[in-house]
Amino acid sequence: MRADLALVGFGNVGRRFARLLDERRDWLALDYDLDCRIAGISTKRHGWIHDPAGVDAATAAGRIEAGEPLSDTDGGDGSFEIIRRLSESAADLKVVVETTVLDINAGQPAIDYVRAALQAGCHAVTANKGPAAFAYEELDALAIDRGVSFLFEGAVMDGVPIFNLVRETLPAVDILGFRGVINSTTNHILSALEDGESFDSALARMQEAGIAEADPSLDVDGWDAAAKTAALANVLMRARTTPQAVEREGIGHGTARLAMAARSHDARIRLVASARRTAAGVVTSVRPVEL
Amino acid sequence: MRADLALVGFGNVGRRFARLLDERRDWLALDYDLDCRIAGISTKRHGWIHDPAGVDAATAAGRIEAGEPLSDTDGGDGSFEIIRRLSESAADLKVVVETTVLDINAGQPAIDYVRAALQAGCHAVTANKGPAAFAYEELDALAIDRGVSFLFEGAVMDGVPIFNLVRETLPAVDILGFRGVINSTTNHILSALEDGESFDSALARMQEAGIAEADPSLDVDGWDAAAKTAALANVLMRARTTPQAVEREGIGHGTARLAMAARSHDARIRLVASARRTAAGVVTSVRPVEL
Repeated sequence: MRADLALVGFGNVGRRFARLLDERRDWLALDYDLDCRIAGISTKRHGWIHDPAGVDAATAAGRIEAGEPLSDTDGGDGSFEIIRRLSESAADLKVVVETTVLDINAGQPAIDYVRAALQAGCHAVTANKGPAAFAYEELDALAIDRGVSFLFEGAVMDGVPIFNLVRETLPAVDILGFRGVINSTTNHILSALEDGESFDSALARMQEAGIAEADPSLDVDGWDAAAKTAALANVLMRARTTPQAVEREGIGHGTARLAMAARSHDARIRLVASARRTAAGVVTSVRPVEL
Repeated sequence: MRADLALVGFGNVGRRFARLLDERRDWLALDYDLDCRIAGISTKRHGWIHDPAGVDAATAAGRIEAGEPLSDTDGGDGSFEIIRRLSESAADLKVVVETTVLDINAGQPAIDYVRAALQAGCHAVTANKGPAAFAYEELDALAIDRGVSFLFEGAVMDGVPIFNLVRETLPAVDILGFRGVINSTTNHILSALEDGESFDSALARMQEAGIAEADPSLDVDGWDAAAKTAALANVLMRARTTPQAVEREGIGHGTARLAMAARSHDARIRLVASARRTAAGVVTSVRPVEL
């Protein structure tokens, strides 16, 4: 069975995905009878490329790393064009793999990419929290209407199944709430603060290690956790919320004192995300909590 | 869609299941278009009953609680007979729900019941660890051959999805090992020992609370954990093991000293079940470990 894919976004996640697809080629053929072909790649700053016979992702990654645009196009965003072309493919399976960076203000342009994919009759898989955090209800309904899948398991808790956990293994369960740590940068910073490291030094280490978001406020002000909380609440509890509606308090220089004080009586400060169903709707929050 | 069920075993689990089925009647009709009917109930000591028009489970439970046999039969085990009759039902869905007690020597007669159900073309759902711990490979192959389901999610970790977690949400993942606490009686006893309670007193409390198995050696000698470990290893790692092949060490009076000693340096003793894939096959164990 032939599957044609369009990669919208081609940063670390998109490139690693393309490599995995290549490494697992034999396994996909054997276990799933799948012959996957990357028909197009689009980027924000490095142009786009499309070839119905298949694009070589390793060559594309090499061009970007060398500072060259992907093709002879003008370097603009060809995402909608490669989605349009994918929809005309004769493949049995057409999948748009969306891996652009989260926009915390409105989840764009990821929502528009996913919407365009679903409208064109392609399955949409996104690693971006935006679509589920800002527009789950609309996109889920659209996918059902077009008979395609809208999937986003990797958007929250990376490789750990959480959306599928509920969807596939707990069909008879009504989720009344959830509570947990869902941002790793702040979690590492809080541990470092307990050990006496300064906030700035701990954050700098997280950035060097590639764990922190490029914009640190997404992590330390709780925006990343709020986007994940909104996505979880929308999907698992049918809330209709957004990251902006999540009650949110981040961590900062002042948290060091709190973390050390908690440590002194055997407790810990963690940035806890939570949601619970109330008579007034689903109430969500992200805030430092002593545990 | 009509579903006819046979309940093989009718203790606490079987009776609670029958009540749930009744409480959720409207919801099953609405969400799943399912009209479930209990066509037969068999017990080890209280006889059996079958009625193609449906058996009233509440009445049956009342008779057993009053010390009366389920019907005018001789009180013998009618499990195979009700499975045979279920297989002749005209229902769209035929399901044998097996909830007998674990036999740690060979997993019988649960394996025979499940085998008979599958061979007769009925789906088999069991809450008993035996079938997966002793005969997973055979029963799984038989179910596939007959085009029916062999399910046992409730056998390990009760309501928490573990078999389905792997099957439904991690299809691309190869499980190399697992490690965890899977017996609650010993876990409660170990906590009590840390608090200075005696082993006998802690065990007696667990038995009164209905948490401990009727035969305490199933818990404290690690047999329950070994059966769960074998089931997990067989299903998740395609091992071909049995509870007897699990390296096993339980807890006893001597564990109190260990638990208190661990506590004194901020550690805990837990009965840890583990499995790992090695070149020589899957190695499994259940033993007290300092964590």
